[in-house]
Amino acid sequence: MNRELLITHASQLVTLAGPARTRVGAEMRELAIIKDGAVLARDGVIVAVGATSEVEPQAAVDALHLDAGSSVVMPGFVDAHTHPVFAGTREDEYEMRAAGMTYQQIAASGGGIRSTVRRTRAASEDELFELGKIRAGWLLGHGTTTVEAKSGYGLTVDDELKILRVIRRLNDETALELIPTFLGAHEIPDEYRNKREDYIRLVIDEMLPRVAAEGLARYCDVFCESHVFTVNDSRRVLTRAKELGFGIRLHAEQLSLSGGASLAAELGAASADHLEWVDQAGIEALRQAGVIAILLPGAVFNLGLTRYAPARAMIDAGLGVALATDFNPGSSPTPSMQMILSIACTQMRMTPAEVITAATINGACSLGCEARLGSIESGKQADIVMHDCSDYRQIPYFFGVNHAVVVIKSGEVVVDTRGDASTASR
Amino acid sequence: MNRELLITHASQLVTLAGPARTRVGAEMRELAIIKDGAVLARDGVIVAVGATSEVEPQAAVDALHLDAGSSVVMPGFVDAHTHPVFAGTREDEYEMRAAGMTYQQIAASGGGIRSTVRRTRAASEDELFELGKIRAGWLLGHGTTTVEAKSGYGLTVDDELKILRVIRRLNDETALELIPTFLGAHEIPDEYRNKREDYIRLVIDEMLPRVAAEGLARYCDVFCESHVFTVNDSRRVLTRAKELGFGIRLHAEQLSLSGGASLAAELGAASADHLEWVDQAGIEALRQAGVIAILLPGAVFNLGLTRYAPARAMIDAGLGVALATDFNPGSSPTPSMQMILSIACTQMRMTPAEVITAATINGACSLGCEARLGSIESGKQADIVMHDCSDYRQIPYFFGVNHAVVVIKSGEVVVDTRGDASTASR
Repeated sequence: MNRELLITHASQLVTLAGPARTRVGAEMRELAIIKDGAVLARDGVIVAVGATSEVEPQAAVDALHLDAGSSVVMPGFVDAHTHPVFAGTREDEYEMRAAGMTYQQIAASGGGIRSTVRRTRAASEDELFELGKIRAGWLLGHGTTTVEAKSGYGLTVDDELKILRVIRRLNDETALELIPTFLGAHEIPDEYRNKREDYIRLVIDEMLPRVAAEGLARYCDVFCESHVFTVNDSRRVLTRAKELGFGIRLHAEQLSLSGGASLAAELGAASADHLEWVDQAGIEALRQAGVIAILLPGAVFNLGLTRYAPARAMIDAGLGVALATDFNPGSSPTPSMQMILSIACTQMRMTPAEVITAATINGACSLGCEARLGSIESGKQADIVMHDCSDYRQIPYFFGVNHAVVVIKSGEVVVDTRGDASTASR
Repeated sequence: MNRELLITHASQLVTLAGPARTRVGAEMRELAIIKDGAVLARDGVIVAVGATSEVEPQAAVDALHLDAGSSVVMPGFVDAHTHPVFAGTREDEYEMRAAGMTYQQIAASGGGIRSTVRRTRAASEDELFELGKIRAGWLLGHGTTTVEAKSGYGLTVDDELKILRVIRRLNDETALELIPTFLGAHEIPDEYRNKREDYIRLVIDEMLPRVAAEGLARYCDVFCESHVFTVNDSRRVLTRAKELGFGIRLHAEQLSLSGGASLAAELGAASADHLEWVDQAGIEALRQAGVIAILLPGAVFNLGLTRYAPARAMIDAGLGVALATDFNPGSSPTPSMQMILSIACTQMRMTPAEVITAATINGACSLGCEARLGSIESGKQADIVMHDCSDYRQIPYFFGVNHAVVVIKSGEVVVDTRGDASTASR
């Protein structure tokens, strides 16, 4: 599309303008807000940002003009940790947990990730694509324009490739941008329960080279936890992945302090995710290595746990922090970054400004997209969301509510719940 | 409207059919679900409930026909504790709490309820009505068809009456049903800080008689807490309210164990609300007196506290439990009962069936509306909501999402986000 897009009269245009790198410490509280702000985009790229009175005259006469009507305008959320391609839902386990079972007990009895693996294996690529399309719409509808998307519910060569191909199709055929991560080491599948080493070899010797050869993933992730993949297992998988050119991510210190953070630092990972049990030494190791901590408080909330990642200690130490949904059918079935912001503010004592930074530019940094995504600045992609409130702090404050009313991806309006009246050509 | 309304093909028609009284213990887990269910309403009242194949032939040829398209159909939520009429928002205090201040510290420094009181006093009745209309739409849009609505941000005779008149107008002029409660004893206003007794006398001698004379409230509530209104203060206010014909509700045991539950039992209150600090003796007293416990876990979540009301102990003891949002600009700024269900399942270990019961029929019972509201049965008012999911358990499970897509109040469609294609005459 070559038509210009002009957005005017944002009560707050939350630009997050600043250095194209991870924001740390006090930088996380600097949102570079413009009052009565406006943005102009051309060919999907932002070309002007400023006060409405300055930007509006620069627009072509036939620009598509969206009056923000005093809503808050900010970058689309970059959700840097999701598992969006799966078959079946797990509300039965949700009910069991309410009745007193733990996530680990349910997993031990054949539920958990393995239950989703069975159903995902049984689903065709087309079926998974159709399910994925619905979820892509859901994510976009809640203001997310880019997600990191993991495989990990296949756990065979063919099923992992199937999931990664679905992620590629979703990226190509929906408005949502998906950045693919291979997570073959998500769980030991049932048929390898008594031959763990064989499964690890399958991941290293067959899956990783195939995924690399087909160019299906940009990152490799491992669920590093003492009862799943140990630090040594994880190091072997991720070292091979690095050799093959993948970036590295790591599920680390989620359920216990098992050394994942140190490993992430040692390997120069892009991110270490979860970190509920990380200690101060782990925080310092991550900071020194420039690894971004991706916090997933939705899983803590949804599992009814009380130990959240030590966000304040991380921010105070100067560690870069991002927030993500962990969208998946077991531990965190929410597509809403807004919900995650509410949990982060109330349960982890992050400020509203810090959570916005964590959910946009810092998420983009963890995916290597900081030059293109995560802020509203000239030269960046026009991924922009209008939220139906007058102050950005109301996005987490009015919780359990979807504030996103207009979503723009690469300069195109892909969600508009406001109806025709508010969208007009000039 | 005299036209019939026919809803067919609910994947689950969650009727909650059963005795028109508080459901307790195991009864809370009985939802009386009909698969492929249908409902027929005439003149706003339900006249037939059953399988689609049974009910559809009973409809008139010109009935408005809504195909549920395999969504879940259930009664509208009855939100039995809200404070929906106020001016101004308090995201500034939300930010302060994230930065480490407590709710009580903020209140002591002039924030909290008193900050909303200042702004609500300054607002005209028309201004409050316009704000209230937006919030009524918000509540309806999230699947709530009836709310209990408290005054309490005026704290002068005129301002309390102003708020109650706004509640009456909202009830008359919007699709939302509001059941009014006088809460003049919500806080000691600034100008009475040093003459508490004078304020209590104002409530008893002037406010209560005026509210009764104008027929502006059905219930009287008091914020019973040692630093606000003591048990003795509360008893005086509520005893006078009973004499004047008001039903009784009570904010009890929210921030400390101060005896509010016993008082609610002693006075035969309709409900005791909050109860985070209630002990087993209080639970037993409430049960014996037939008082309904209204739990407000949104406030616990939003204030970043960890002590939730002991819902399991209450249900196991046979105490009737309802859930409500506590919608207000300070402690619980959410209009979404769905969000409350998610918090109740994950943080209080209530099951999905229990939270649905607590949010519908038990809420209706606490308001004396159980003969008319809270379930889908012949003879009841057609307050019905269609949720875009296939299993009722998904409503809390997919959290942070608004599942309500069609909302019907008294047989009229008042919200329909599905567009024209899905609504057709037969």
